[in-house]
Amino acid sequence: MDALVEAIGDLAVHGANVQPGQILGVTASIGQEELVHAVAGAAYRRGALFVDVFYYDPLVKRARIEHADPQTLGFVPPWYGQRMLELGDRESARIGFSGVVCPQALDGLDPALLGRDQLPWVSEITKVVDDRSTNWCGVACPHPRWAELVFPELPPGEAYERLRSELWHVYRLDEPDPKAAWDERVAALKASATALNERAFDALELSGPGTELRIGLLPTSFWQAGDFATRNGIRHLPNIPTEEVFTAPDPERVDGHVASTKPLVLRDGTIVRGLRVRFEKGVAVEIDADENADALRTRAASDEGAARLGEVALVDREGRIGALGTVFYDTLLDENAASHIALGNAYAFSAGEEDRRRLNRSGIHVDFMIGSPELEVTGVTRDGSRVPVMQEGDWRL
Amino acid sequence: MDALVEAIGDLAVHGANVQPGQILGVTASIGQEELVHAVAGAAYRRGALFVDVFYYDPLVKRARIEHADPQTLGFVPPWYGQRMLELGDRESARIGFSGVVCPQALDGLDPALLGRDQLPWVSEITKVVDDRSTNWCGVACPHPRWAELVFPELPPGEAYERLRSELWHVYRLDEPDPKAAWDERVAALKASATALNERAFDALELSGPGTELRIGLLPTSFWQAGDFATRNGIRHLPNIPTEEVFTAPDPERVDGHVASTKPLVLRDGTIVRGLRVRFEKGVAVEIDADENADALRTRAASDEGAARLGEVALVDREGRIGALGTVFYDTLLDENAASHIALGNAYAFSAGEEDRRRLNRSGIHVDFMIGSPELEVTGVTRDGSRVPVMQEGDWRL
Repeated sequence: MDALVEAIGDLAVHGANVQPGQILGVTASIGQEELVHAVAGAAYRRGALFVDVFYYDPLVKRARIEHADPQTLGFVPPWYGQRMLELGDRESARIGFSGVVCPQALDGLDPALLGRDQLPWVSEITKVVDDRSTNWCGVACPHPRWAELVFPELPPGEAYERLRSELWHVYRLDEPDPKAAWDERVAALKASATALNERAFDALELSGPGTELRIGLLPTSFWQAGDFATRNGIRHLPNIPTEEVFTAPDPERVDGHVASTKPLVLRDGTIVRGLRVRFEKGVAVEIDADENADALRTRAASDEGAARLGEVALVDREGRIGALGTVFYDTLLDENAASHIALGNAYAFSAGEEDRRRLNRSGIHVDFMIGSPELEVTGVTRDGSRVPVMQEGDWRL
Repeated sequence: MDALVEAIGDLAVHGANVQPGQILGVTASIGQEELVHAVAGAAYRRGALFVDVFYYDPLVKRARIEHADPQTLGFVPPWYGQRMLELGDRESARIGFSGVVCPQALDGLDPALLGRDQLPWVSEITKVVDDRSTNWCGVACPHPRWAELVFPELPPGEAYERLRSELWHVYRLDEPDPKAAWDERVAALKASATALNERAFDALELSGPGTELRIGLLPTSFWQAGDFATRNGIRHLPNIPTEEVFTAPDPERVDGHVASTKPLVLRDGTIVRGLRVRFEKGVAVEIDADENADALRTRAASDEGAARLGEVALVDREGRIGALGTVFYDTLLDENAASHIALGNAYAFSAGEEDRRRLNRSGIHVDFMIGSPELEVTGVTRDGSRVPVMQEGDWRL
């Protein structure tokens, strides 16, 4: 088996912390079979009861968007959600793969129609994450077609070698003990989260090219890093790589405008480039883009909370992704290159009990990158004083 | 899109007779994506509500058999069966693909362990078929790896061309109107079934090389051909190709011995060669084989009905498969080359209401081929007279 794929599979099972006797639900795309096999082998060797793989096929979605009755595009068979809820009820492990497998799968389709079919995303994932019933991990899967998208200027074979070499570095596989390296990095991220929690800012101000945004925080908005525990205390790393510190904002107090600093790749593969969003009193009142603005507009109109923020995340420049300067067209990687915000649902555990009802609720969660070395982040305390938080990509706390 | 694959996809959707507004459940293996796309396109063009594809990955099964606790190998997550039952409750369409994609996937594994994990088969399929709630069709999907198994003496490219050319013929795609050709063939099969029903034999005697078997029939054992209707009257062709006329025997009255005339390929890909079975009072009391007898023995021991017969099928030599002389290592094709019997469950609609409780019940249904040009089939009437049914592959009724 390919050494990179095997190492990523091992990291995914380590990150999800698969327990003996657990079911492991895997969500993969057609084209990611080898990583599925690596994960299945590693999980069964750790004593998993059953590895249940759902393979998503983007070309079946294409056939649907092209030929099905547009009025039916929101339909999802009930067993998709039931599977997810039962994975939660049984306190299972979950692993999901990102990474592009077929960049042209949805080319030329009407973005408004695409926005109606959010598969492989199912809204029941939100409940399972909020319940903290599953231990899970998402990783990005290498693929030659993805490499051609990321490095279009290189011949295909070279592009794939370049992608593999960057992933090897990004996953810290060049460290003597990659798992220990991740433990160390996550500890540093948690220290930044703790410093932010101690300040208990009332708001953050973000200022940079194309961006002047003030984001209100809830009294108990709680900053976290990528080290979670289930309700039963099973620790897990939900993303590998992870380089972010994040919380949920006050969905009523977001004002100003932002410009994305990286392309946004939606879950179905649609790429939104040159995104610009203006907020008033928490609501995204204007969404523009150079490409595929409609796909995001449709999502932002899908329910009441879809046009409000559910997350704000800060990324320093110690992470290995931002330093590469590569656009991966994969949110899991790109969001860890730069500070970002997300339209839609907030994680319930991002605020204390007393503020939980005020968190944004939605069936969507769409991250987009607004960070860059030029982005300045300032904290505003409850007494109105202003404290530098991040400048030139470095923490100032 | 490949013309053969597109034509098979069209035939599958025609065979299942997919209706506007129906969900279509597809079961495919990794490696059969192109046929999935052909089927999805054809189904959505006919107005399907949703095409739900389950991709089975034999290498995930391999990881399980190799590494999981052997005691857990019978476990199936409940949502596998729930999906099947809900497809039935919603009166959906179903299409399944046979055909080998990875001949070595399960090589070298313990057949007894393999017998414990019957996926992608789930026992709930039996109820859905018996309820006649879904309109369905199974077709075989071409694949280069399959061609190498069927024609090992040919260079790989030539083997695949040969397989494609034989499938083109077997699917009657060389007829001016393949769908009309299937209508005609199914009408001829129904005429043979009607002739058998008019005789209402008490038993059949099968005699040929390695085979001397007497199979009792129930008073209302009902012979059918490959043209079904759902409880709501949606006609469909459950198998394409189909060349057989079949019924369910009396599970208490089967005596003698049989030798298989083609290799038996189990659903998980295990190949049982040189199979010999001896029956006493309906029960398979001895199961021997040159290879992998244990895989079948384990299945035959899986429940009370698993060692009794649920089907007897007669195949004449008008079919196109037998004439080729090719062993396809795929039951859907090979069973239509030759007369066969099946261990395990009987289709409930194979007998009249008054005999339905006497039909064999089991969680398995395993067909194996015992027919050849040398096989003579004799009908025994209730008054004991003997009537030739099939000689040299021709009907004698």
